[in-house]
Parts: sequence; C-alpha cells; structure tokens
Amino acid sequence: MKIPPVKGTRDFYPPEMAVRNWIIDGWKKVSLRNGFEEYDGPIFEYLKMFQIKSGDEIVEQLFSLKDRGGRELALRPEITPTLARMVNQRINSLPKPIKWFSVPRLFRAERPQKGRLREFFQWNIDIIGVDDVLADAEVIFATIDYLREVGLSREDIKVKISSRKLLAAFLKSLGIPKERLEPIFAVLDKKSRVPPDTFSQMLDEQIPDKDKIRKILEFMSLTSIPELDDFIKLPDEEFYAYNEIKILFTNLSFMGVGDFCVFDPTIVRGLAYYTGIVFEVHDVTDNLRAICGGGRFDNLLRDFGGPLIPATGMGMGDCVLEILLREKGLFDKKVSKRELEYFVALADRVFSKRVYEITAELRRRNFSANFSYKPLSGLAKQLKEASTQNAKKCIIVGSEIENDQLVVKNMATGEQELVDYDEFWSRLGRQPG
Amino acid sequence: MKIPPVKGTRDFYPPEMAVRNWIIDGWKKVSLRNGFEEYDGPIFEYLKMFQIKSGDEIVEQLFSLKDRGGRELALRPEITPTLARMVNQRINSLPKPIKWFSVPRLFRAERPQKGRLREFFQWNIDIIGVDDVLADAEVIFATIDYLREVGLSREDIKVKISSRKLLAAFLKSLGIPKERLEPIFAVLDKKSRVPPDTFSQMLDEQIPDKDKIRKILEFMSLTSIPELDDFIKLPDEEFYAYNEIKILFTNLSFMGVGDFCVFDPTIVRGLAYYTGIVFEVHDVTDNLRAICGGGRFDNLLRDFGGPLIPATGMGMGDCVLEILLREKGLFDKKVSKRELEYFVALADRVFSKRVYEITAELRRRNFSANFSYKPLSGLAKQLKEASTQNAKKCIIVGSEIENDQLVVKNMATGEQELVDYDEFWSRLGRQPG
Repeated sequence: MKIPPVKGTRDFYPPEMAVRNWIIDGWKKVSLRNGFEEYDGPIFEYLKMFQIKSGDEIVEQLFSLKDRGGRELALRPEITPTLARMVNQRINSLPKPIKWFSVPRLFRAERPQKGRLREFFQWNIDIIGVDDVLADAEVIFATIDYLREVGLSREDIKVKISSRKLLAAFLKSLGIPKERLEPIFAVLDKKSRVPPDTFSQMLDEQIPDKDKIRKILEFMSLTSIPELDDFIKLPDEEFYAYNEIKILFTNLSFMGVGDFCVFDPTIVRGLAYYTGIVFEVHDVTDNLRAICGGGRFDNLLRDFGGPLIPATGMGMGDCVLEILLREKGLFDKKVSKRELEYFVALADRVFSKRVYEITAELRRRNFSANFSYKPLSGLAKQLKEASTQNAKKCIIVGSEIENDQLVVKNMATGEQELVDYDEFWSRLGRQPG
Repeated sequence: MKIPPVKGTRDFYPPEMAVRNWIIDGWKKVSLRNGFEEYDGPIFEYLKMFQIKSGDEIVEQLFSLKDRGGRELALRPEITPTLARMVNQRINSLPKPIKWFSVPRLFRAERPQKGRLREFFQWNIDIIGVDDVLADAEVIFATIDYLREVGLSREDIKVKISSRKLLAAFLKSLGIPKERLEPIFAVLDKKSRVPPDTFSQMLDEQIPDKDKIRKILEFMSLTSIPELDDFIKLPDEEFYAYNEIKILFTNLSFMGVGDFCVFDPTIVRGLAYYTGIVFEVHDVTDNLRAICGGGRFDNLLRDFGGPLIPATGMGMGDCVLEILLREKGLFDKKVSKRELEYFVALADRVFSKRVYEITAELRRRNFSANFSYKPLSGLAKQLKEASTQNAKKCIIVGSEIENDQLVVKNMATGEQELVDYDEFWSRLGRQPG
C-alpha cells in the first residue's frame, strides 16, 4: 500500500537534511555567541492559549486535536505564547534580563504557497525584562549577525525599522484619538501589500480629513532618519518615541551594522500585540516575503496572566530564508557534502576480524568509519563503495597485517602508503567530540 | 489568563534544554561516526500509514487531527513508517546500503507514566538493503558505542539478543505448525512482564502438549550461546537461523563489545513486523523499562508498497535513558553549565560606544559576549551580572581606552590585566565556527 506525504510538509532526505541542519546550526551558533540561552516547549498547547495573543481568527489557521479527556489542543503556530507561559511560571526565580532563543518546529493549516508551508522551523530570539531600546538594538544586531554569517551582505538584504510608538505619537499630534489608532494601524500595515488606489480608499474610510491623510502619506513615505528629523514635529510629551528610534539607529551604527538598517514607516507589523520598535528584514529587490520580523511587545506577559514586564524579540522562518540563500547560490559554497573519514576495506577474507576491530577503534576515537557488508565482493568493488560514500581515506587490510602493517590509500590523490600498525594509531590520536 | 501546559509534555527551560541537547548531540555524533546519514520526515502523516505497520490498535494511541480537506492525519508515534515511505519513493536512486539515522520528536496519546511521556525524542538508526547479519551487528555496535560514550559500562547495562528466526525454527522442530507461531510469539514476548503462573496459563492456552511446553520453557531459560549450543538440535534446513546468531555474537566480540551482549530468548519484541535478530538494552538491575530495542524487519518496505528489501534497525527514546543517566549521576559530570566567554563592562559612560563595538567584534569572531543593559548602574553591579551569566572573562572599558588599552579580568581568579587594544585582538584570533 503506497501512501503519499501530506501536502505542505517536507521529506528531509540526507541532502535536504544537510541544508536544514546548516541553517539551524547557524541560528544556534549565532544565538549563543550573542548571549542567548536555548529553551523549547511542547509541540502542542491548549487551543485557547493561541487565542489570547492572536484572537479567534487564528483558530482556523491551526491544526487542532484533542487529548483523551476531550480537551482542545492545537499544534503551535508560533512559540511566543509558550514563551510567555514558561516565563510567567517562573517569573520570580529567573535571573533578569531573560535572553532566550529557540528553534521550534511550527505548524499552520494554510494552503501551502511559495515560502509558506504547513510545517516549518523558526528561529526565535527574545529579551525579557529590559525596556531600554538597547535590547531592541541587540535583537536586530543578532539577526544581522546571523544573516551576515551565512553570507548575505547589504547588497542582498535590508532591515526596515519603524516604531509603533512614533506612529502613535505622530497620529495623536494630528489630533487622531487614541482609540482610533488600532484600526488605522491595521490599514497602514497594508500599504506595501495593496495597490495605491486600494490603500487610499481604505485610508479614506478610516480618516475623513484629506489634510490629515496627506500628512500621513507624507510620513509613510519617509525613507531615513534625517528625513524624519526634518519632517516630524512632536509635542514634548511625545518626544521620547522620536528620541528612542534615533538612539536605536545610533546604537546599531556603533555595533557596526548601521549600513544594513533603514527607517521605513510602512513597517507596522500586522499583529496588534506590538508596542514599540518594529522591524522586518527584506531582500533588497522586495521580491520575496519578509525574511523575518520582530519588535517590542511589552504587554504580552501580562496578557498571559503574568506581571507587566517589557519584552522584545524576533522570529525568522526557514522557508523564505532558504529560497533567498538558494537564489544567491550560498548553499553550494557552504553546505558540506556527506563525507566519511575512513573506509576499511578487506583484501583477504581471512582478516575480516581485523576490519571490524579497526573500524570500531576508529569510531571510538571519533572518526567516521565504515566497512563493506559485502567484503567478499573484491577490493575493486569495496573501493567503489568507498568512493560512493565520499571517503577521504581507505584502509586496506591484507596480508601486510601479518607484519603489523596497514595500507592507507588517499582517495583524492590515489596515493597508497604502507604504515606501521602502532604508528598509524599514535599518529591518528583522537578527534575531539 | 493563566493556562497550564498539557499533561505528559515537557517545558525545556535552559537547564533542561542543555540535557536534551547533550543527549541528542551524542546521538548525532555517534551516528555520524558509525557512517549513518541523517534524515527526517514530517511530524504528521496520513493516519492510515500508521495502521499498516501496527494495525488498528495503534489508532487509540495516536493524536489524530484533520487537514482542511477533512483527511485524517496523525502525529507520528514512530518514524519507521515514514522511513519506509521515503525509501520506497526513491528506492531506485538511493545508493545501497542505505544507512540512515534520525532523531524524531514522537507522540503517543497515552496516560503519562515513569519513562513514558506523550511527547518524546527517539534516536533511530536503520540499515536497509543488507541481509547479512553483519548489518544487525553494526546496529547493535552503534547502540553500544553511544551508551559507552555517555559513560555507561557493562556494569550498568546489558544488551539482550535473540532471534525470531531461531525461535521459529525451534518451535517448528517441536512440530508446531507455521500458522501457530505468531500467537505463540505474542505469549512468549510477555514472559518477563507477567507472573510465572499467568505466563504458564497463557502458554497452556496456546499449546496443549505439556512436553512441548516444558521444552519451550527450557529454551526460554537459556542464558548464553554455549548453553544454546548444548541444548538446540535443529534439522539441516533450519540450521541457518542458529548459525546466524552465532556469527552475530562472534562479530560483536570482534568489534569489542561482546562483553555487553547476552543471548536472551525471552526477547521477542511485541510487534509482529520483526523477522530475525531482535534485541533490547536494559539496565543490569532490570528496574527500568528497556532503554532501547530493535531488530530485523525484512518485510516492512514491501508492506508499504515497495519491493522486498531487507532492513534492520534500532530505536532509543530519551525518557528512560534520561532516568538511567540521572540515577548514575552522569549529567552532573558531563552536561556543561551555561558559560559566557566575555562580559564587556562599562566603567565610564562616555565610552559606551566602545562597549558595543567590542562586543560586536567578539561575536563576529565567534566568541560569546554580552554587555549590561544597565551600564549606568555602576561597575560592581555589572560584574555581578557577569558572574550570574557565568562569564569567564570580563573586559572593563574605562579611561584606559583613551590610551588604547583594555582591562581584562579573569572571573575565576579575580586577576586583572591591562592589555594593549590591538594586541588583545591579535592574541584572540577567531574561534572556529
């Protein structure tokens, strides 16, 4: 009986697995060097947990299931609710600031499309307990640190940064009341994704005053901090929002990543839970979806039943990233092919015992090693098997072993060397684990 | 709103995550050095896929869900069906032998108990395309190679090995017809888990002949290959089954792991799909469930719509293993605590820019580094923060930087050193990725 895989999922054969591991190992390495500690939660949580942050709309994008007691569960579509739950559970005993990362496997019951699958991996970094914009700078720095590490430069990607606080301050300075902000944010968030006419019309529906719309459109088309400096006039009590994003850009340039970053007020981020700095990384041509996005979410832990503690973070999925890295040809250069350090071949069947011994000892010393399961097929076939497995060296066990000698063949050059048995092992040493 | 985690799942805070990573990294390292390549499949598959191998009983142990088209899916309770599906899909293009490993996250909708959770990780190694018992020896060797690597010795664990082929040959030699074997296997599999009286009774129900039962019980109480040699008398056409397990033990001793292995005919393995050598690893006291189990399953690929290709493999979950390693005190010795290589402290606020620069450069060179988000809190508080983060060294940026010098403090000894700025970087070099 032949059964296909479920649409929108992936089979990771060894070559695809090598790519996945390369991406994820990079995420982990960069997280650790940026001082983040790893955590993870369960693949499923109670369904209602995902509604707290994202409302009831999320439910139809979830894979839901039931436990044996009939309780509604769902496969996690993101890890932030789990993070909030876990941090709240131990809020008093965890040293602050909490600087955590995770690489969860996530699920969305959507129609699969380019860069969006039903099952994917997402790098998450979060800093909890710091209201200073320095934490936002750290999150953006770590994000760029990774993208730079895998070979992307400012010719490939840009980090678009804005501030919801600044946007709110600006709208308030136009006389728009606080309770109108959320629906207007939702419209402004669409600017780069709908045709200009549609956008205009959506804005008209929210704001009757043409003059205000004109000013909003002017604000939305700013492209740098100096332009913002010239444009913005805020009352003193709203000034901190402006100051904050200025300091952010200064910090990012001190950290040496300023040239990746642009001020872009069209970045609003759809989700209502963002409260301050927001950002997205895009490829410079803007042909793909965002590579990642993040920002400040100071109310989330409270929304999950904990105290009011500031937080900021970022999430980067593997699907869009992989498309971009493939387009740029970065895998071919960087993902290493399967390699075997030693293949132990048998030239004379009476010595088969020695083949197993040598292979076992190589492995104990942490060198990858194989032998043929068809040792009687002859040396030529075994060497071919070694080549198929991309072996670097071949140890040939033949009558020389009676004189305590091994033949070691370099598979790249074809050179063969007769080596004293004990000398072989003392030269080899042990590979660190 | 406070929501608890789902029962039978685990939250991995950084300390628990370190243990999980240590276990999984070990599995991966040992797999690679034993010449296995990594693969993975989706977390969910069509429900019916799991019924092929394990029958309808499995359904109530599954977390089932539906896709948007209403098709029945299930979270994978094991990865072998996915392995069979994936190998069958590319059977003609994959080089043989296929030697693959995976560390899937798996799910069972059972009542959680000691060593059995609803969500767990399992190391799987499989060799496909080899009928020689050498492949079974390799699987057992790799299993022991890992257990030895994490610090377990033959004083801690034993590998119990038997053969379904041998058991079948023996039962047939007693005149038991082939079609009666499967239900008798199911009873014999229970021997070590039910009281002797219950076992006797179950056997009586299957086999009316007291003399045959006596002989079966004698066979089942054999404890070594020499005992088997004295006991067994098989007709010539059944001799290969006996020969095979003898060769297996010889190979295992050639590989240097013979002293971990015992012949134990009570190992039958519950699942009907095993066809030859079967084995389990237990702690020597037999107080825990099996640490892992495996064996030969030559019909599985055919059952999944592929060709008849021999296969053998092993699965080891993380839960029982973790209990055993904890009992033996092996985590305390081996799992390293969180460590930060550098903490960059600010002694004078006018140099904050330099703190960000230095931290960014350390990270670029692949050293883990942090600075304080409260740099104005004073040097003493920053050093305390560095200690909390278990920093090895602290770089103190103060007025010395005006003379191009840094203060480097060794956090273990408390020693401070004044280092020339350029010399610091040239001494440091770059840490390999």
